[in-house]
Amino acid sequence: MALKKTRKENYPEWYQAVVSEADMAENSSSPGCMVIKPWGYGIWERIRDVFDEKIKSTDHENCYFPMFIPLSFFQKEAEHVDGFAKEMAVVTHSRLSMQDGKLTPDSKLEEPLIVRPTSEAIIADSFSKWVKSYRDLPVLINQWANVVRWEMRPRLFLRTREFLWQEGHTAHSTAQEAEEETTKMLEAYRDLCENTLAMPVLVGRKPEHEKFPGAVDTYCVEAMMQDGKALQAGTSHFLGQNFAKSANISFVNKQNQQEFAYTTSWGVSTRLIGGVIMTHADDEGMVVPPKIAPYQVVIVPVIKNQDDENAIMNYIGEIRKDLANKMPFGEKIRIKLDKRDKSSVDKFWEWTRKGAPIILEIGKRDADANNVMLKTRIKLGTPEGKEIISRDDFLATIAERIEKIQKEMFEKAQSRLMKNIRTDITTVEEFNKYFSQSNEWIEDEKSGKVAFVRGKWCGDPESEELLKAMKITIRCIPFDQTGTNGVCLLTGKPATTDVIYARSY
Amino acid sequence: MALKKTRKENYPEWYQAVVSEADMAENSSSPGCMVIKPWGYGIWERIRDVFDEKIKSTDHENCYFPMFIPLSFFQKEAEHVDGFAKEMAVVTHSRLSMQDGKLTPDSKLEEPLIVRPTSEAIIADSFSKWVKSYRDLPVLINQWANVVRWEMRPRLFLRTREFLWQEGHTAHSTAQEAEEETTKMLEAYRDLCENTLAMPVLVGRKPEHEKFPGAVDTYCVEAMMQDGKALQAGTSHFLGQNFAKSANISFVNKQNQQEFAYTTSWGVSTRLIGGVIMTHADDEGMVVPPKIAPYQVVIVPVIKNQDDENAIMNYIGEIRKDLANKMPFGEKIRIKLDKRDKSSVDKFWEWTRKGAPIILEIGKRDADANNVMLKTRIKLGTPEGKEIISRDDFLATIAERIEKIQKEMFEKAQSRLMKNIRTDITTVEEFNKYFSQSNEWIEDEKSGKVAFVRGKWCGDPESEELLKAMKITIRCIPFDQTGTNGVCLLTGKPATTDVIYARSY
Repeated sequence: MALKKTRKENYPEWYQAVVSEADMAENSSSPGCMVIKPWGYGIWERIRDVFDEKIKSTDHENCYFPMFIPLSFFQKEAEHVDGFAKEMAVVTHSRLSMQDGKLTPDSKLEEPLIVRPTSEAIIADSFSKWVKSYRDLPVLINQWANVVRWEMRPRLFLRTREFLWQEGHTAHSTAQEAEEETTKMLEAYRDLCENTLAMPVLVGRKPEHEKFPGAVDTYCVEAMMQDGKALQAGTSHFLGQNFAKSANISFVNKQNQQEFAYTTSWGVSTRLIGGVIMTHADDEGMVVPPKIAPYQVVIVPVIKNQDDENAIMNYIGEIRKDLANKMPFGEKIRIKLDKRDKSSVDKFWEWTRKGAPIILEIGKRDADANNVMLKTRIKLGTPEGKEIISRDDFLATIAERIEKIQKEMFEKAQSRLMKNIRTDITTVEEFNKYFSQSNEWIEDEKSGKVAFVRGKWCGDPESEELLKAMKITIRCIPFDQTGTNGVCLLTGKPATTDVIYARSY
Repeated sequence: MALKKTRKENYPEWYQAVVSEADMAENSSSPGCMVIKPWGYGIWERIRDVFDEKIKSTDHENCYFPMFIPLSFFQKEAEHVDGFAKEMAVVTHSRLSMQDGKLTPDSKLEEPLIVRPTSEAIIADSFSKWVKSYRDLPVLINQWANVVRWEMRPRLFLRTREFLWQEGHTAHSTAQEAEEETTKMLEAYRDLCENTLAMPVLVGRKPEHEKFPGAVDTYCVEAMMQDGKALQAGTSHFLGQNFAKSANISFVNKQNQQEFAYTTSWGVSTRLIGGVIMTHADDEGMVVPPKIAPYQVVIVPVIKNQDDENAIMNYIGEIRKDLANKMPFGEKIRIKLDKRDKSSVDKFWEWTRKGAPIILEIGKRDADANNVMLKTRIKLGTPEGKEIISRDDFLATIAERIEKIQKEMFEKAQSRLMKNIRTDITTVEEFNKYFSQSNEWIEDEKSGKVAFVRGKWCGDPESEELLKAMKITIRCIPFDQTGTNGVCLLTGKPATTDVIYARSY
């Protein structure tokens, strides 16, 4: 009962099929934008709640800033920043009026407004009003918001014109404190990806030419998708005094001198859901890590004879009541009883496609024998995927089972990542040969297919040109470096750093 | 230490002062838009969490729909609907490019996009794809989102160009079921306003000319502000088959016939915060109902001698630990220890302006005597507003005290509402005379100032003209009617209903 395309057959079509069969999102009549449906949005709500708690426990506060940014805010930036992103939605009128029977934009604005692609500019403007003295620092804020970037090749979750994200923005009195903030939040992203999404990541710094425009340093977490490509899952920027200078965020320091503040920004988006899909989904559909599954246990009644309905539903009611006290990960368990007017087989496949971690099927025989039929999504198709166990055993082990699923999902993905980082490529010929292979799916156990290369880099513009031509990017400069010995595998020049090379989303 | 303007002196300036001194929101450099600051956003988060739980417990699911709506979606509506709202943000370009050194809108869109003023049109479009059979119904969804209406006279929280809200949208197979949904969510709004925001409301149906364009019936909750004006706090619309017909949401019913669905929509917004301010704030600043207060208890250390700091902070630490177990309203208590480098007097006034329900001041003398100084915001300036009580007494009563504050805030507002609905006005002369008075503040105990009138109405266009000229509106047709006897107080014609007349925001 595999999806219409497997990973091996056609990876991009497999991805579309996972999203659509799991009913997580769909393309909308609004060009390039997506509708996030309940199962997809439920996953986002879980990610949001987990990370929001982290944001607050690290003393950040949530705010909300306008989504419209006056054009003039970008003027200075555009003059100074080479990598200025220009594909943005521009609001030019504030009225619709009927002209010759046709609705037409009317009331032209004096100054066009940009729908935020990110909020550094408008938030820095507020900070400049809030900060006067070192006593006003640090300012530690975050917002959950929608942002817009005019993508020309939209893909659900990975790249849509509008998406949801959080963006943290902070201002500090010293560079050191701001740098600490940047790495603290990078670590928070690593923790989120690995311990909540069960998605292992490589952590590091972006090379100069891949930095966020205006940043002194950009740090990132990079995940490996099942086609070997890298997905940038989150970024944390140390902005130095760049934004503070252009927005005039200045303060009187302890020595009674006027000084510019040091700022940071950091964000993750609904793109993470794309990463979760391409980390965990299989040829049968979505697989959701229990920590972010809207429901961890789905109960499907199997009623073959209408006369049995009461007995089965009573038995389910008892189990559900006992289940409600179970606390995997120290949180209330999330249960769904699927009472819809559909066959239990259809329901099973629907929840399998959605990737619910555990499906309980309960029929007359189970009720009579005080048993449950327990199906585990990550074991689908294997003998352990389907167990008949006693109700007592089920209730005694369910929290532990759910925690174990989360752990195993991470371990599997971690093993895949580790096995698919080539470290033995030392020349541009080998590099070329490796990346010129095509593969749809790297598989879990084998390596050798195209994925990541860890190797030496010289940092010369010449090497950047080479990469550009091959459509390969440097994903990050990992924190664990082996030293400045050796030569760049692209140019043969003396190397300065170890980097991760990969194709990317 | 009153605010720079009292309610009596200048009500609109008092409102601005409350918002600004409580640091809840501010005007932004983005024209007509506001920045919602942590204290204001924290209140919104509480409102959102409480209502989100209600949404989910009534079987609705959250989704997210695009904020850009193609212009053509409004074309049909504009042709058929008289009250079509035209003040909307229009996106016409998708690029900025540098021309003669100036950033300029570029890449004109083939079809302009409207930033959602509300999402009926784009959501109905999705529903038309989701619904094929009666088995697909009901569809019960909600989204939390930002929306834009091009207000010309913006006011923080009450009327800004961009605001945050929730919008529920549902589709049903019968009119009766859709009508039940409409009234169920209206009741949920009443419950939210009264039991969470401590803001009493009148509940009813809008007259024909005040309905949402395209609705068969619009229901509303209306609150009375301290200047006697009405604030529409939430609306719930029964849309009949109107939107289903224009978007083609049709299904095969149980009789195997094709039929249009019946839809509803309902929403509340950050405007509620404006309502909370004008229901509860006083001349000293904001007063936040405990259920939505980001912090219910703020602890201010009073350290007069640096040597005492350890003893005081240890004592506070112990109290805080015990406090953490307290559960007013069955939820974890929300506590803030204010350790900032500021005088305790300044902190007290800051938290008073913010309207924190309870402030605990703890100094050396309190620590030595095992006491706390407890200050209750709603009793500010009265002998009961400041109590020295034992730590044991404090811990034993705090949950109850917090619940009592919520209750008393509601009762006070409820009494004000009840005392300020005139029911003895029966002629247009009396009506005119009553509403031609001006007043800034209706006060709590006295009546007779301009607020609400409950009286008879004939429903004739002539009466609508009269009201328009006087800038009075019919807020609602209350559910509790006294019958069709009597005459319209505006026209003297035979009356059909009792209505609530008032000035409004």
